[in-house]
Amino acid sequence: MIIVMNSKATDDQVQEVEKRIQEFGFRSRPSQGEDRFVISVLGSPIPDALQEALEHLGGVQEVVRISKKYKLVSREFHPEDSIVDVRGVKIGGPEVVVMAGPCSVETEQQTLETAHAVKAAGATMLRGGAFKPRTSPYDFRGLGEEGLKILAKAREETGLPVVTEVMTTADVDLVAEYADMLQIGTRNMQNYLLLEAAGKSGKPVLLKRGMSAEIEEWLLAAEYIMAQDNEDVVLCERGIRTFEKLTRNTLDLSAIPVIKRLSHLPIVIDPSQGTGKWYLVPSMMRGAVAAGADGMLVEVHPNPDHAMSDGGQSLTFENFQEAMDSSSAIASAIGRSIPKGSGVPVSADD
Amino acid sequence: MIIVMNSKATDDQVQEVEKRIQEFGFRSRPSQGEDRFVISVLGSPIPDALQEALEHLGGVQEVVRISKKYKLVSREFHPEDSIVDVRGVKIGGPEVVVMAGPCSVETEQQTLETAHAVKAAGATMLRGGAFKPRTSPYDFRGLGEEGLKILAKAREETGLPVVTEVMTTADVDLVAEYADMLQIGTRNMQNYLLLEAAGKSGKPVLLKRGMSAEIEEWLLAAEYIMAQDNEDVVLCERGIRTFEKLTRNTLDLSAIPVIKRLSHLPIVIDPSQGTGKWYLVPSMMRGAVAAGADGMLVEVHPNPDHAMSDGGQSLTFENFQEAMDSSSAIASAIGRSIPKGSGVPVSADD
Amino acid sequence: MIIVMNSKATDDQVQEVEKRIQEFGFRSRPSQGEDRFVISVLGSPIPDALQEALEHLGGVQEVVRISKKYKLVSREFHPEDSIVDVRGVKIGGPEVVVMAGPCSVETEQQTLETAHAVKAAGATMLRGGAFKPRTSPYDFRGLGEEGLKILAKAREETGLPVVTEVMTTADVDLVAEYADMLQIGTRNMQNYLLLEAAGKSGKPVLLKRGMSAEIEEWLLAAEYIMAQDNEDVVLCERGIRTFEKLTRNTLDLSAIPVIKRLSHLPIVIDPSQGTGKWYLVPSMMRGAVAAGADGMLVEVHPNPDHAMSDGGQSLTFENFQEAMDSSSAIASAIGRSIPKGSGVPVSADD
Amino acid sequence: MIIVMNSKATDDQVQEVEKRIQEFGFRSRPSQGEDRFVISVLGSPIPDALQEALEHLGGVQEVVRISKKYKLVSREFHPEDSIVDVRGVKIGGPEVVVMAGPCSVETEQQTLETAHAVKAAGATMLRGGAFKPRTSPYDFRGLGEEGLKILAKAREETGLPVVTEVMTTADVDLVAEYADMLQIGTRNMQNYLLLEAAGKSGKPVLLKRGMSAEIEEWLLAAEYIMAQDNEDVVLCERGIRTFEKLTRNTLDLSAIPVIKRLSHLPIVIDPSQGTGKWYLVPSMMRGAVAAGADGMLVEVHPNPDHAMSDGGQSLTFENFQEAMDSSSAIASAIGRSIPKGSGVPVSADD
Repeated sequence: MIIVMNSKATDDQVQEVEKRIQEFGFRSRPSQGEDRFVISVLGSPIPDALQEALEHLGGVQEVVRISKKYKLVSREFHPEDSIVDVRGVKIGGPEVVVMAGPCSVETEQQTLETAHAVKAAGATMLRGGAFKPRTSPYDFRGLGEEGLKILAKAREETGLPVVTEVMTTADVDLVAEYADMLQIGTRNMQNYLLLEAAGKSGKPVLLKRGMSAEIEEWLLAAEYIMAQDNEDVVLCERGIRTFEKLTRNTLDLSAIPVIKRLSHLPIVIDPSQGTGKWYLVPSMMRGAVAAGADGMLVEVHPNPDHAMSDGGQSLTFENFQEAMDSSSAIASAIGRSIPKGSGVPVSADD
Repeated sequence: MIIVMNSKATDDQVQEVEKRIQEFGFRSRPSQGEDRFVISVLGSPIPDALQEALEHLGGVQEVVRISKKYKLVSREFHPEDSIVDVRGVKIGGPEVVVMAGPCSVETEQQTLETAHAVKAAGATMLRGGAFKPRTSPYDFRGLGEEGLKILAKAREETGLPVVTEVMTTADVDLVAEYADMLQIGTRNMQNYLLLEAAGKSGKPVLLKRGMSAEIEEWLLAAEYIMAQDNEDVVLCERGIRTFEKLTRNTLDLSAIPVIKRLSHLPIVIDPSQGTGKWYLVPSMMRGAVAAGADGMLVEVHPNPDHAMSDGGQSLTFENFQEAMDSSSAIASAIGRSIPKGSGVPVSADD
Repeated sequence: MIIVMNSKATDDQVQEVEKRIQEFGFRSRPSQGEDRFVISVLGSPIPDALQEALEHLGGVQEVVRISKKYKLVSREFHPEDSIVDVRGVKIGGPEVVVMAGPCSVETEQQTLETAHAVKAAGATMLRGGAFKPRTSPYDFRGLGEEGLKILAKAREETGLPVVTEVMTTADVDLVAEYADMLQIGTRNMQNYLLLEAAGKSGKPVLLKRGMSAEIEEWLLAAEYIMAQDNEDVVLCERGIRTFEKLTRNTLDLSAIPVIKRLSHLPIVIDPSQGTGKWYLVPSMMRGAVAAGADGMLVEVHPNPDHAMSDGGQSLTFENFQEAMDSSSAIASAIGRSIPKGSGVPVSADD
Repeated sequence: MIIVMNSKATDDQVQEVEKRIQEFGFRSRPSQGEDRFVISVLGSPIPDALQEALEHLGGVQEVVRISKKYKLVSREFHPEDSIVDVRGVKIGGPEVVVMAGPCSVETEQQTLETAHAVKAAGATMLRGGAFKPRTSPYDFRGLGEEGLKILAKAREETGLPVVTEVMTTADVDLVAEYADMLQIGTRNMQNYLLLEAAGKSGKPVLLKRGMSAEIEEWLLAAEYIMAQDNEDVVLCERGIRTFEKLTRNTLDLSAIPVIKRLSHLPIVIDPSQGTGKWYLVPSMMRGAVAAGADGMLVEVHPNPDHAMSDGGQSLTFENFQEAMDSSSAIASAIGRSIPKGSGVPVSADD
């Protein structure tokens, strides 16, 4: 951390800064520049409280943090790529892992049918919501445990591991009983007690980026999970909030190479939430694979216009199959792969 | 809700839209414009699922929602201003309510000293954090129940009602036991289970705006609380996330007249979180009062440079007193009032 | 400027950094921290090119700029508040200067009528657009020189100095011939050739903040004008672009104390553009005055629903009068003043 | 356009709305919903002034625009993809066009060397700045006409058509004399007089998205150019401004499929400006091609750490060659192509 004094700072003010640094147990190193004094703080990690304390002192113009606040998630600490194993599916390796399924689990038939269809198209994990965070209290909020049971049954039939959202610490054990991977949603990225509870569950965790979270905050949220001795964290970019109105969010694909540089954790992309429009999803699937994503979350529904949530961003079986085919060609072009499925099953409309 | 068909939509596509509307139990009314068809949906409230379903249908160019998603919080539903009573302090009436105190409860002495100081300067409620959400897992997270006890003691000594944050459903009963008003923090604005638990507690709730929440989402979060038969909700604007780097957040004072137009609920402003810089706080306190805020949350600390959290945005006793004096003059100028305190007590530095 | 090397940087990499710094003519000072090397660059102002050069070198983790890029506009360089004189009206002094008038000059009658009305209510400058930047090529773009003549006539009749927008270097002389102050609009804040041309005109310049400009960029734009030996620059905050949809922009009143701290230049607020809704304007006028604004730009129209542009954000004469009265009371409460006008003239509707 | 009346609107208020619509020359169609009145405006295009007029009327709750403001750029108006021919290079066809070169033209040697290198790697157009918009008045602003001459010489030697920025109407003729395509920069996207002048020049125009422009505003800016009977417009996404600090901008690749849906114009991507970090560029080049971009602008420099501007985001010859190879493989995977160059020439470092 660097403390920049303003050009009129007095000696007393400089000494006061150094005194506060020492009270926090750190060493300081002053340095006279041409027109102002600069003081370095040695040691790490430096608590926010020290930064805030110094910002308040007289003569201080600016406090600049130069060391990172996170450690366990950083590539400096762990140079090799991490691979997260979810019931045999390896996220972060050469294979691009596609987690597909309905936004919400609505019925057993809808879920099983979708699970078979996405498996046939090459997906290797099943996604689906049993507990749904909804902006309005008057919307459908998911089937709860009943939904978890349906997901487990779909896994039994298809062999696809299940990832599903948990919204509150009180439900962590319940969800962990049925699911293979716990999803922390965008609205809960800074629900720190939930992060810790998910970490303690021992299950792999899919951590969605908060819709207005800086990448550093996202990595710090992952640090909360890893600090519980849980190394199986997968990051998921799902669009950030911007001024643009034609897309629900702005999908930040540059987060892929940024994360790859800063962290060893795998990163997957959610183009369904990220765009909010089904007709933008295939293009963003291809872009994500090309940009280096380790996987994707894709919403698929037998009849999107009959979906109980987010139908507008769900692909039909047919559109999903096409998008998987082109994504697979791109994966091959960069030396990765998406498994070929067994072909499209009978669709809901037939 | 209005469905705009594209200019090449077929009759079959129009009929399909009308059919889906009827399946959801609503009536439709088609209307041929000059170059495209427009279909109105009659009835309210219209679920998101219908909107999403229609967005997926062929020939649909756009679906425009014209009725609001919230009801209980709306001024249409409840034309008169609501006044929320917190242990005798009335928020939403002619008096501007100042809730002041330390960011975090650190020690009994620090808290009591601050409580007396802010009361002397005209504050009528005490704020202070016992449970602190922190971006990094390595930062101070508050004293927990010990902090709640200190707050209760400060109330006993000063008579100031206490508002403090609750971070998880599991703690709602505990916090409600000590506090007079539950605060939902910005990171939890869309933690729907927590909103409902706070609503059920029967305590007044201070609902902070999510740092990237649209005002409509914020009102829907308040609707979650009110839907639990809890009418005592106070909204708190605390700055939104923008591209500007010189302030921690961008304090959106225009939210005051917007909320006053759309809702009957009181609105207070947090200029400490909203700017993140103590030297910007007094100016924003004055601006907030002038723009019509019903109250303010202000961070005050005996020695801000020794604070364990957010010292950089905390006022000293002296700065707080000055800011209260000028704010009080502004309140008078618009026919409201901030109580005169009894004068500044001996400060921590003496 | 500080260069932070990553923890695995080699000696050669450190030397390469120092060599580049010297090639740019600056001195460097290395410093070994606990786990990484930090190199300071001495001297100022440091060009962007050096920063960018260093970011490219091996072993460099981060380059942090600690000195400001601007000079003439800074308070460090010029500690006293600047007062800008526009034909006798002093902006930046104890009086809060209100510049009011129609969004667009439409007819002589509309402009004269409005000029008399705003003067009667206490405005001391007249605003009005003759050249209008419009998002769509199919919208009304102003009367051009004819509009400038009408503004000059209104000044003649009322004595109010005129501020109006200039959109291109080719028009600077023409606009300067009629206007007392040149306005640079939000879309042109980084039209650097226009800034220089306006600076060279010798006229006072009102520089609107770009709708997504950081405050530092805004000050640098002002630096372009001042670098032409033109000291008469007034900054105007007019709302920034955010994700919120209920207001046209988010009016950033915290820019007032930020600018007051960093710069000696006066700052005025445009609540009409800043909110885009006439019913939010009076509240934001009061907030701006209380927060320390040196003036305001307010759109007023005899019949806002008949305006040829931005009618939705224009006040009627009556609403303007009321807003001026309450703003004036607030100015008094903080030791400033808004002149009392002579009373409301006969309005257009009568 | 739809006018939603509030639930307490009177008959008189409804009539007043209809009267205003008729005064503007449009027809209205009222419709009684269950709890509120809705009035449709028939005809198009509807001027902003009518929308603003109606927003001001009593009883009006909301005015919703449902028809688009642009026409010439829309796919409804021109269903087939447009192909823009720049001296024989076809943008918008099956070939992905790479425009590469230095950020700024600095010397003849640097430019020629780079032109040969990018051609060898598969680029088919040369980019380079002779007029540079710079945030600070103290930075290098380009060589001006001297730079244009160097670019023309590089074209002569390599056969690569040249695209370069024009910053002001006064320079349009000059730049058009040397360049094959005029670039309108992000800061000038709403410099309407410049758009018209570029349109009138008859040269193809590359229109960069404003850094905080909504896609609709961007299309309207293109409409300004096309309204001058210039059909050769190429859109360029170059990153938008968000809260994220680790990238200079957030590159919005979802703009590609959005534009493809709304417009017939080609779209290219600038990953150098879009990320601001050279090490993120190759990944975003691959992502852009996969997502359907018709081309790319890439900054390349013989010695990025000696560049006079934006060195931090420029690729070396070697990095560019590698990125082109992988991008080419991706183009093939989706049925498009990037030409193979003739191999890397001797680099500046040898």
